[in-house]
Amino acid sequence: MSDEIMTQRLWTGDYYNEGTGRSDIFDTLKEECGVFGVFGHPEAASLSYYGLHALQHRGEESAGLCVTNGESFNYHRGMGLVKEVFDRDKLESLVGDRSIGHVRYSTSGDSRLTNAQPLIFKYRDGDLAVATNGNIVNAPKIRRELEQSGSIFQTTSDTEVIAHLIARSPKEFVEAAKDALRQLVGGFAFLLLTNDKLLVASDPNGLRPLTMGRLGDAYLFSSETCAFEVVGAESIRDIRPGELLVLDKNGLREERYAAPERKALCAMEYIYFSRPDSDLNGSNLHASRKRMGQVMAQESFVDADVVTGVPDSSISAAIGYAEQTGIPYELGLIKNKYTGRTFIQPSQELREQGVKMKLSAVRRVVEGKRVVMIDDSIVRGTTSRRIVNLLRDAGATEVHVRITSPPFKNPCFYGIDTPDRGELIASAKSVEEICKEINADSLQFLTPEGLIRAVGGDNQDDYKGGLCMACFDNDYPTRTDFDGEEKFGCTC
Amino acid sequence: MSDEIMTQRLWTGDYYNEGTGRSDIFDTLKEECGVFGVFGHPEAASLSYYGLHALQHRGEESAGLCVTNGESFNYHRGMGLVKEVFDRDKLESLVGDRSIGHVRYSTSGDSRLTNAQPLIFKYRDGDLAVATNGNIVNAPKIRRELEQSGSIFQTTSDTEVIAHLIARSPKEFVEAAKDALRQLVGGFAFLLLTNDKLLVASDPNGLRPLTMGRLGDAYLFSSETCAFEVVGAESIRDIRPGELLVLDKNGLREERYAAPERKALCAMEYIYFSRPDSDLNGSNLHASRKRMGQVMAQESFVDADVVTGVPDSSISAAIGYAEQTGIPYELGLIKNKYTGRTFIQPSQELREQGVKMKLSAVRRVVEGKRVVMIDDSIVRGTTSRRIVNLLRDAGATEVHVRITSPPFKNPCFYGIDTPDRGELIASAKSVEEICKEINADSLQFLTPEGLIRAVGGDNQDDYKGGLCMACFDNDYPTRTDFDGEEKFGCTC
Amino acid sequence: MSDEIMTQRLWTGDYYNEGTGRSDIFDTLKEECGVFGVFGHPEAASLSYYGLHALQHRGEESAGLCVTNGESFNYHRGMGLVKEVFDRDKLESLVGDRSIGHVRYSTSGDSRLTNAQPLIFKYRDGDLAVATNGNIVNAPKIRRELEQSGSIFQTTSDTEVIAHLIARSPKEFVEAAKDALRQLVGGFAFLLLTNDKLLVASDPNGLRPLTMGRLGDAYLFSSETCAFEVVGAESIRDIRPGELLVLDKNGLREERYAAPERKALCAMEYIYFSRPDSDLNGSNLHASRKRMGQVMAQESFVDADVVTGVPDSSISAAIGYAEQTGIPYELGLIKNKYTGRTFIQPSQELREQGVKMKLSAVRRVVEGKRVVMIDDSIVRGTTSRRIVNLLRDAGATEVHVRITSPPFKNPCFYGIDTPDRGELIASAKSVEEICKEINADSLQFLTPEGLIRAVGGDNQDDYKGGLCMACFDNDYPTRTDFDGEEKFGCTC
Amino acid sequence: MSDEIMTQRLWTGDYYNEGTGRSDIFDTLKEECGVFGVFGHPEAASLSYYGLHALQHRGEESAGLCVTNGESFNYHRGMGLVKEVFDRDKLESLVGDRSIGHVRYSTSGDSRLTNAQPLIFKYRDGDLAVATNGNIVNAPKIRRELEQSGSIFQTTSDTEVIAHLIARSPKEFVEAAKDALRQLVGGFAFLLLTNDKLLVASDPNGLRPLTMGRLGDAYLFSSETCAFEVVGAESIRDIRPGELLVLDKNGLREERYAAPERKALCAMEYIYFSRPDSDLNGSNLHASRKRMGQVMAQESFVDADVVTGVPDSSISAAIGYAEQTGIPYELGLIKNKYTGRTFIQPSQELREQGVKMKLSAVRRVVEGKRVVMIDDSIVRGTTSRRIVNLLRDAGATEVHVRITSPPFKNPCFYGIDTPDRGELIASAKSVEEICKEINADSLQFLTPEGLIRAVGGDNQDDYKGGLCMACFDNDYPTRTDFDGEEKFGCTC
Repeated sequence: MSDEIMTQRLWTGDYYNEGTGRSDIFDTLKEECGVFGVFGHPEAASLSYYGLHALQHRGEESAGLCVTNGESFNYHRGMGLVKEVFDRDKLESLVGDRSIGHVRYSTSGDSRLTNAQPLIFKYRDGDLAVATNGNIVNAPKIRRELEQSGSIFQTTSDTEVIAHLIARSPKEFVEAAKDALRQLVGGFAFLLLTNDKLLVASDPNGLRPLTMGRLGDAYLFSSETCAFEVVGAESIRDIRPGELLVLDKNGLREERYAAPERKALCAMEYIYFSRPDSDLNGSNLHASRKRMGQVMAQESFVDADVVTGVPDSSISAAIGYAEQTGIPYELGLIKNKYTGRTFIQPSQELREQGVKMKLSAVRRVVEGKRVVMIDDSIVRGTTSRRIVNLLRDAGATEVHVRITSPPFKNPCFYGIDTPDRGELIASAKSVEEICKEINADSLQFLTPEGLIRAVGGDNQDDYKGGLCMACFDNDYPTRTDFDGEEKFGCTC
Repeated sequence: MSDEIMTQRLWTGDYYNEGTGRSDIFDTLKEECGVFGVFGHPEAASLSYYGLHALQHRGEESAGLCVTNGESFNYHRGMGLVKEVFDRDKLESLVGDRSIGHVRYSTSGDSRLTNAQPLIFKYRDGDLAVATNGNIVNAPKIRRELEQSGSIFQTTSDTEVIAHLIARSPKEFVEAAKDALRQLVGGFAFLLLTNDKLLVASDPNGLRPLTMGRLGDAYLFSSETCAFEVVGAESIRDIRPGELLVLDKNGLREERYAAPERKALCAMEYIYFSRPDSDLNGSNLHASRKRMGQVMAQESFVDADVVTGVPDSSISAAIGYAEQTGIPYELGLIKNKYTGRTFIQPSQELREQGVKMKLSAVRRVVEGKRVVMIDDSIVRGTTSRRIVNLLRDAGATEVHVRITSPPFKNPCFYGIDTPDRGELIASAKSVEEICKEINADSLQFLTPEGLIRAVGGDNQDDYKGGLCMACFDNDYPTRTDFDGEEKFGCTC
Repeated sequence: MSDEIMTQRLWTGDYYNEGTGRSDIFDTLKEECGVFGVFGHPEAASLSYYGLHALQHRGEESAGLCVTNGESFNYHRGMGLVKEVFDRDKLESLVGDRSIGHVRYSTSGDSRLTNAQPLIFKYRDGDLAVATNGNIVNAPKIRRELEQSGSIFQTTSDTEVIAHLIARSPKEFVEAAKDALRQLVGGFAFLLLTNDKLLVASDPNGLRPLTMGRLGDAYLFSSETCAFEVVGAESIRDIRPGELLVLDKNGLREERYAAPERKALCAMEYIYFSRPDSDLNGSNLHASRKRMGQVMAQESFVDADVVTGVPDSSISAAIGYAEQTGIPYELGLIKNKYTGRTFIQPSQELREQGVKMKLSAVRRVVEGKRVVMIDDSIVRGTTSRRIVNLLRDAGATEVHVRITSPPFKNPCFYGIDTPDRGELIASAKSVEEICKEINADSLQFLTPEGLIRAVGGDNQDDYKGGLCMACFDNDYPTRTDFDGEEKFGCTC
Repeated sequence: MSDEIMTQRLWTGDYYNEGTGRSDIFDTLKEECGVFGVFGHPEAASLSYYGLHALQHRGEESAGLCVTNGESFNYHRGMGLVKEVFDRDKLESLVGDRSIGHVRYSTSGDSRLTNAQPLIFKYRDGDLAVATNGNIVNAPKIRRELEQSGSIFQTTSDTEVIAHLIARSPKEFVEAAKDALRQLVGGFAFLLLTNDKLLVASDPNGLRPLTMGRLGDAYLFSSETCAFEVVGAESIRDIRPGELLVLDKNGLREERYAAPERKALCAMEYIYFSRPDSDLNGSNLHASRKRMGQVMAQESFVDADVVTGVPDSSISAAIGYAEQTGIPYELGLIKNKYTGRTFIQPSQELREQGVKMKLSAVRRVVEGKRVVMIDDSIVRGTTSRRIVNLLRDAGATEVHVRITSPPFKNPCFYGIDTPDRGELIASAKSVEEICKEINADSLQFLTPEGLIRAVGGDNQDDYKGGLCMACFDNDYPTRTDFDGEEKFGCTC
């Protein structure tokens, strides 16, 4: 008996997203960053605290905030969650009505406090703060050129290059910023703050989400609309590809620094990253994900006894699948919500004995049942295999895996931390082979067409529904190599 | 516009259950405590850490653990969550193969560290540690008598009386404990530890859950089965009413200290307290709650566009209601998961401006829709009114409230912290009046019969399905007053 | 060269008294405790904070404070320094005009928070708090008797027995306290607080210092007068042997519970424990210690080039010795002031390489010089040997050690933590043998007569100058064994 | 009576130097910084921990350490004391055999973590770390020029300019550093670290102390020799004015980047800043300060009953004064050693009632006595007045103030934080006027000649004894204004 119990357990490494609980079992596909800006509200720092907190799932490693009252910068950055980095005293010391804030996810060894954003610079015209989400593909090349002509850098973050480009330009600030932005290739959302102005920019393909809201007379900017809800603000519109907004004492000025190119918003924001209560392109994401489950059910129905979703990100899709098929939705998998970074890991001995920390199958729900397990993606395949086995060990007689995205085959160059192509299981293997490897009875992926249909709305007529699906189909909207060197991952 | 936004927000006080997220909007019906015991495992402290963590939703105020290797006690108690109270160094210092642990919820001003359990005593025969869940109705009377004869107390916890009763008895330990237990009236689950023995006892009605598991040769005891799952243990059976288990060097001995009375397990454990992945009386609680939603749908169908549950405790029931009615289940309400005790509360100004911390309605889901809102109970009514208004302000055209328990009319004497009868809205008002007060379009409660049916299983033939439903029907299984003084609330 | 440097270093274990810096090189003779009481001041808690802080050198392990406003107790205790245990919020929550506080030094494994004083009890007549300094020689005997009749204890502190004796007495509180005090044998200073009364008591020999002060209309009580200076209070008088002060709504009542016996104030308070700016029996301690140095110079002059004192406790005596002899006082030894409990200890390798943390000889001061090294006591001799070698390695040509106390030969039964008699070097060896063992060129101790003369004042005519010198001459003022069992050390 | 007590108290603001205890009553003359470098020791980080700790009195605001193993930098910086900034884990992560460390005092609002040193830069040739003590008078001018040509800065610290000057130079690193150093005017000690090399430089006047030691094969560099003693190293020699030491795989190379100018070591290092167990120019500072007291006694004897020094910095001089005059040295003033940054300040009410935190007069020592009070300097005069009044209120019949430095009349441009000239009392008033203002019976300052004589040794023949006494005589060794703008204070 105890053997059976022991193999039933799951151990999924020590990364855990306390808030969303989503990434804990996806040990490879990590969040990027989130930005939040305020212009014209006397409690800019407090608003940002709640706003950044709503974006916490986009980055849990460090948080920062830079506020100005028009005279000078007040800022604070620290390692940890928003609620750990800021306390009441710190917020009260951040006086001003304009601010930019940032939550950061970092890939590994470079998780130094000095890389925490907003980055702050002093140059000829005064102070400059920068917060960004995304990745600049040609940053290494630009950096090398700047260093050759005597620039010194404080961080390993490529975000620093935009400050140098601006400082080196003979033009005034807004024009200098436009010149600088035009030199960058990649997917990015930028907030730039001086004591006079707030600048807001999106890359020419609109790869990363960035949206505008209003609270009374104040303008707010956020990676996701859920942050507007939390602070009681009204959602206005998304920032457009190639757009540059300038906010200063004359109010808001809508400019552009580049012609818009093909609209290509990251598909993974729909599938997995953004919060279910955020809207993308005017659609609620819980609803979109439920539609993914429904389309999935149309595309690949399977007769079964229960539908269960891998918590938390696939619950919406699982409910959609259940509704469409009439198979009941059950709580077959449960996540331990308390676990977090400070949690003590079990000893090797206890781990072998079956102490499980993050995810467990609910035996009374799945025992003797044919289970449809809904998940949002398969990266390396190891996690999927573990969850399938967890269900089998708890007595599931069949496990049918349904993935609400197409096979993930290519690395992302625009801010999502993905493993090398060689580690992406879908890059090398067929669906049948993956099915076998993860020990499932059947496996189906959502088709690209199904994904576009589920995302739906006014995107339908756009090229590929206005989505970047390069990770599925290798069709990248920008150049991706410079000096023969590919750079993927996350800049911030 | 801003008026509308402002009234749309919810502010629910500063209590928050970080783990379950359940009690944050029920500002009056609080958890009781949880206990976890180990006998015969070399890593008793580490197992208890994971076990208590799985019971964290039963008490977030303090945590404690007492371990013995047969020679002497090692113990640690602290204010806060399990993961805050213990670190690796502390766990490693708690050497021994037997232990009792406790998580505690406390009612208010008495949240002193000195009340944190396990309580530790030194008496004639050595060391004694006690951990309990429940309430001893006649504790004040016993305490007065003890004080009159010269006893001094260290805590305000009534748990201390059992130690005095044992210390005063001329009999040996097990018999002294039986004598002591026989003097207690109420609902309680006790773990008592000496350097020689572990004693496990349940009150004669089995009011509070307490269950036994095995891990290899070790015996485990827990308030809920979910803690066994987490540590890889097998669930064996529930402790029986009036039973006293004795574990010592001779192994497990099953005794009783009192004849069992009417079986009366707390109905609110089914409805609200226990974790959805725990089993009670052999039934999975997610499944039981889903059945409550289904029975509810049969009892009080209403035509609507969406079903939504108040997170997190009513999600299961909402899905059941949706399945039964065919009305789609949607994410109409969302809870902010990061919020916790350390979170900074917004200023009065920001609060008025609409900063909402814990619960928000998802406008795109409920706007223009007729909504069925599933919740598990109504205590004072204020919270329900807020949530209904939240949905209305987000555009819901109708809000139909369905409560998966009968009206809550009477205080609990067995460990649940309830307000005075005068504050219980169902005690004074009719369902129609409550419906009006909470601003709902319709309101229905689950019937007692429906509840028993949903809980189901082998309980069906027991008196009232083996449940204590005194809070609904005023039929208390024990005496409730002594010296003319009623004592309700939680002993631990 | 490096060999010479390496042997020049000193490593003195990991105990360090951050405040006084005194005990760091006396690894065996440890402080006892300190008490501070307030009656009748609206800011009793804040006064106690500063008062206990001034007594910090008497106990660095834990600190505690219990305050009452006449209605109920507010208290807080914690491990660490006064400034670590209390913060502004905690002080502000301790509302009341009467209080007793405590700083505690503990001997070892028993340093549990539960032993931190004031101890708090609940008994028939309400709440009782107790703070004490000293040792009750017959506490184990009393405790055994209490346990036999059913008492349970929460701590390992013998202070708890007085609470049980009071609770068991049929008399009213003050008389019950007198009865209880009469049963105790030893050296002790007691503060007892109820919601009505503050009781202040000293043992019949006045072994432990306890003194009274006034601040406006309030009465203050403290182990040392330095705490009065810090809070701006006036010093009034010492508590007399066998005295019991009762403070309540009728003001101060001076009573006694026992006839005074031979006055016997601890000589080590003069020599070493009390702060140099405190007064004992009306004499300033810096001045007393300087006189010890002067008398020492008269008793045992030696021709030398420099006089240096072992910091910090022997600086006063060294200056006295220098003044009397005309040999210049120099800074031959220096202590590193930052070191404290949180300081990282060097690795074994670095320690061997000469990293020294606490004390170093100043080469330019002692090189080529004949040095008189003044110290206050020799316990085991190991530390003295290290310091002598330190001076030699820094180039001293001769080292003459002068100790400002008689040889320490017997353990203390009244609150000072001393090693067993077998470890006291003076118990087994002659002065010549000790001189050889510590590698000094000459060694002299102050005579008992010289000590009495230096302490001086109105004590001269008392038996032994009113001092307890049992650690020097084995003449204990009380019985020291009960049931054939000796108990020495510190009760608190 | 209480009036008298109330005026007797001292309140000296909330700055306190926990380690030296010296600056707590000089609310205006603040420490500068300290540097510590290691080349060639496998435990460079641990050595630096102890070394920086020994230099803690030179800067308590932040501490930092950058270590390299020849491949890459590991560094850590934080706000607080050395023992707070580093723990064992951090030290163990700082692997390498070469390091530079820094403790920083900062003047006020600019106490940001980003200014904590060592500063770290990335430039064309790799990584560069810089730690400095002192002030660069022409830094603002250089910075403006750099910004005009496109440089961006991360800190407000002028130390950053040297990194930019090096990064902009077309020459290789050592030559680029020499060029850069030649452009700087001021008083400074520099440590520069790359993965290949450690550079050590002193300004052409040798204004700031910087000294070299050896530990086995390793070279150490420190602001003061006391840090060598602590780690068991041998003191070798001071770094010479205009010298540049280069340490790399070829060992130590002694070069210069500028011709030495007039030797002008800061006189305040002798009088007040450096630790008494450090050597400056081969003389022990306790001995030097004692000689200052002796020379003072010869220059301005006064008949009195006791001599007392303001702790801790003037104890040595007071003993010298006492020895020379035969007037006994007594402990007339005592400092509370526990007080620190975390200490709670008394409420206004308690302060008025006489709670004193830092310094108190010992009544039994000074009552009815004529007191000579030795202090090291008078800056604004307010503190001196407070201490004189403290002594008078404790009963001193006469207070004669003797200051062991000439009148402080001019601001420092080389790293000491001084108030504006207008606030320096000696700048505007005569000695008689100051005497009156501080309420003394007599006041005398040490003469410049007396100071030189006391400092003594081989400096006697140098111009002004090799000292910078600009703060006394306005004779600055360098230019002090650029672009018409004076810059004084501290660069680091």
